[in-house]
Amino acid sequence: MLSPLTECWNIYEIELAGPREGNPFVEVELSAEFRYRNRCLLVDGFYDGDGIYRIRFMPDSEGEWTYSTRSNHPSLDGKTGQFTCTSAALDNHGPVVAADNCQFAYADGTRYTCFGTTCYAWNHQSEELQEQTLRTLAASPFNKLRMCVFPKNYSYNKNEPDCYPFVKQADGAFDLRRFDPVFWQNLERRMGQLRDLKIEADLILFHPYDEGRWGFDRMDAASDDFYLRYVVARLAAYRNVWWSLANEYDFMEKKQASDWDRFFHILQERDPYQRLRSIHNGARWYDHSKPWVTHASLQTTDLAGGIRFREQYRKPVVYDECCYEGNIEFLWGNITPELMTQNFWEGFLRGCYVGHGETYLHPEDILWWSKGGILHGSSPGCIAFLRSIIEEAPAPLAPITDLFGWEHRGISVLGIPGQFYLLYFGMHQPGRKDIPLPSEGQFTIEVIDTWNQTITPLPGTYHGRCRVELPGKPHIALRIKHVS
Amino acid sequence: MLSPLTECWNIYEIELAGPREGNPFVEVELSAEFRYRNRCLLVDGFYDGDGIYRIRFMPDSEGEWTYSTRSNHPSLDGKTGQFTCTSAALDNHGPVVAADNCQFAYADGTRYTCFGTTCYAWNHQSEELQEQTLRTLAASPFNKLRMCVFPKNYSYNKNEPDCYPFVKQADGAFDLRRFDPVFWQNLERRMGQLRDLKIEADLILFHPYDEGRWGFDRMDAASDDFYLRYVVARLAAYRNVWWSLANEYDFMEKKQASDWDRFFHILQERDPYQRLRSIHNGARWYDHSKPWVTHASLQTTDLAGGIRFREQYRKPVVYDECCYEGNIEFLWGNITPELMTQNFWEGFLRGCYVGHGETYLHPEDILWWSKGGILHGSSPGCIAFLRSIIEEAPAPLAPITDLFGWEHRGISVLGIPGQFYLLYFGMHQPGRKDIPLPSEGQFTIEVIDTWNQTITPLPGTYHGRCRVELPGKPHIALRIKHVS
Repeated sequence: MLSPLTECWNIYEIELAGPREGNPFVEVELSAEFRYRNRCLLVDGFYDGDGIYRIRFMPDSEGEWTYSTRSNHPSLDGKTGQFTCTSAALDNHGPVVAADNCQFAYADGTRYTCFGTTCYAWNHQSEELQEQTLRTLAASPFNKLRMCVFPKNYSYNKNEPDCYPFVKQADGAFDLRRFDPVFWQNLERRMGQLRDLKIEADLILFHPYDEGRWGFDRMDAASDDFYLRYVVARLAAYRNVWWSLANEYDFMEKKQASDWDRFFHILQERDPYQRLRSIHNGARWYDHSKPWVTHASLQTTDLAGGIRFREQYRKPVVYDECCYEGNIEFLWGNITPELMTQNFWEGFLRGCYVGHGETYLHPEDILWWSKGGILHGSSPGCIAFLRSIIEEAPAPLAPITDLFGWEHRGISVLGIPGQFYLLYFGMHQPGRKDIPLPSEGQFTIEVIDTWNQTITPLPGTYHGRCRVELPGKPHIALRIKHVS
Repeated sequence: MLSPLTECWNIYEIELAGPREGNPFVEVELSAEFRYRNRCLLVDGFYDGDGIYRIRFMPDSEGEWTYSTRSNHPSLDGKTGQFTCTSAALDNHGPVVAADNCQFAYADGTRYTCFGTTCYAWNHQSEELQEQTLRTLAASPFNKLRMCVFPKNYSYNKNEPDCYPFVKQADGAFDLRRFDPVFWQNLERRMGQLRDLKIEADLILFHPYDEGRWGFDRMDAASDDFYLRYVVARLAAYRNVWWSLANEYDFMEKKQASDWDRFFHILQERDPYQRLRSIHNGARWYDHSKPWVTHASLQTTDLAGGIRFREQYRKPVVYDECCYEGNIEFLWGNITPELMTQNFWEGFLRGCYVGHGETYLHPEDILWWSKGGILHGSSPGCIAFLRSIIEEAPAPLAPITDLFGWEHRGISVLGIPGQFYLLYFGMHQPGRKDIPLPSEGQFTIEVIDTWNQTITPLPGTYHGRCRVELPGKPHIALRIKHVS
């Protein structure tokens, strides 16, 4: 018999029939050992309802893999098999990982520049709205999406979802020991669709926007852990999943600092692939220097501080929230598209990644930041423009802090010394600027209007200290390339 | 013989003929005791060249004053006289003083809202340009001017002045024991003209923009002190003089921290009127909580921090530099007029004062911030608009920090609880806002476009928690008045 084929970094899934009596979520233990040459990975299975059990696995090496299952139930124990992992398709670069230069990259080494957006509760909306969100994302510049497992109870987010992660009992309470496969199957479908759109799913595992309405923000420790292990068993094999332990973790009043550390440990222990792990702050930052944190996921408007945060953590730094383009009454949700764009340029040119969100008032309260739908703002076009500039640039880019003297430290500079420079003046409007280019070689200079999305080459070439005439308006960047 | 008359807070000047041989600046000591009822003020005189000595005095109480001089030269010693101090004219409110509520006020209690600007070296330019600067100031919203005694050697400021505070010797060096009366007479004339325009002269006594060209930034301690005493003797009687010990004091490499303290002590000791005393930072702040500092003179863009600085110092807080409207290459000199305006609103609504400067490139390098001339920017009109709003408001205004919850702390609020509120949204663009007004009474609400300078009353009156529809664009403020 020929061994089944699975593409590298895709999902190989084992489906088994097993007991349906009692509470299989609690009573049935199931896992499998996957073996490849001298490697062995232990992968948890999960109950998917209707007597169906699944073990979901993502191979990361081409060649023959074998497995054998373990279970406390005889019908599921000792199953063995094998499959062949084939080379990845051209557009499959594997999961995103944190590289040691404070940057992300795909597992195959391909550049991944993280341009995220936020639709916290899009997967809790109507089927029609979810589909619309996917169409919007497909046409957008975004390649990461922050989204929550649990439904959201917050301003502009009062609608009840169709289903929940847990089964609702007759008395209206949730049975925290029984998951609802319908909910999870939808979530998986959405994650797969995001993956096919080349969008990372930055999955938020806990959040405070519940306030006891459903109680998912105040489960006991055993339920939290039980839930986390189920999440990992079901979803870790999706190569586009990132674990965001929480949004505004510090606003979850029932949790202690030790809970968050324990959750990180559970992810470390159960996730065979060591997916990206982070935790997003409200007012108080988690200590991102802890070894189990793979990247800093920040809420702050201190974009210039990015250089310092990179040095402090030596990990990728993502500004997942630096206010949203919109016009709602909250200050975090009513910045102009110009400022959203500026935050992106500032953050990226400090060597970090910046996330987008949009909060325009809507007659039916469909705000992109939470429910998805369509984008109404002007910043996404500018973000697409920035993305094209970053992705066309040579790699690896890093902040350059010594091009100018200290009095120009407000100018952000990203590049490769002697080879390539992006300079950004932000809200400043210089009419000219002396640039201390290397005295060796020749450089071209282009003036970029980051708001109107134009690139204007300056005539000739430059080297050494040279004076550049600038438009004298805000939102200007320069792209400087070594040409000979 | 009738006693001469001098208006309160104007200058009463005694002119005496004395020796002109030797070096009268050094060799002749002259002072006078001025007596009023049980008060006695000791006032230093000064040599004005050509054998003329002057004692300049500002009386601050109506009625009879007497004086008697003291000198080490017989021709100047023991002169006595008297004069009558009459009530001040209607538009003469006396010198500005620091009130204990972190605000300035004129000596007669009249409100003084400080709207400063900066022409560091205007008094070192041509007569024609100085006159133009005065005409510009007369039509401007500004009522304080930062200006230097010493000439300036800096970008856009390379021209040699016509004269200097000290006499230049045949060898080109300055005689630091001989002042040039021509220089000082012009300075006094300008200070008098500013006074008549109701503009405070925030006189900068030292600055680092010399770099040894003339050497005034690196005089020895004895020369510094000699100079300071002369400044005080000549200028302290001008009711509009403020002592700014230095601009960017921390950039003066030849000075120690103890020098600055000593200078403050000299001012305290020699100035009979205890004029306002401050010192302006570059990168490192002076400790404005020291008792001889009357108000904080800050360089920072942390406008929101104003509330904290008020609490820390319990003195008036003046943002004398928070970047300048312009388009030069330096980041501090190329912000937009929108941001300059925003800084004013933000600073004033945090209970502080904000200063203006303008640095637009000019074919002859005549930049307002240094040489004066005419204003080219758009912020002064907006600043005039803010000034009218502040001056029409009831007093005393203070920041209100508890109108909203912490999540709205980015909204600046100034007012008198229950009576009057100014709210400012800055760069934010809310489309609506819930305002928790007092439930008692009725309030009117006006929407202020701080950039387009419009005030639009909303229909009706409001009380309690009320939802206000807003334009959904940046630069919006609200004025809320209790009406019944």
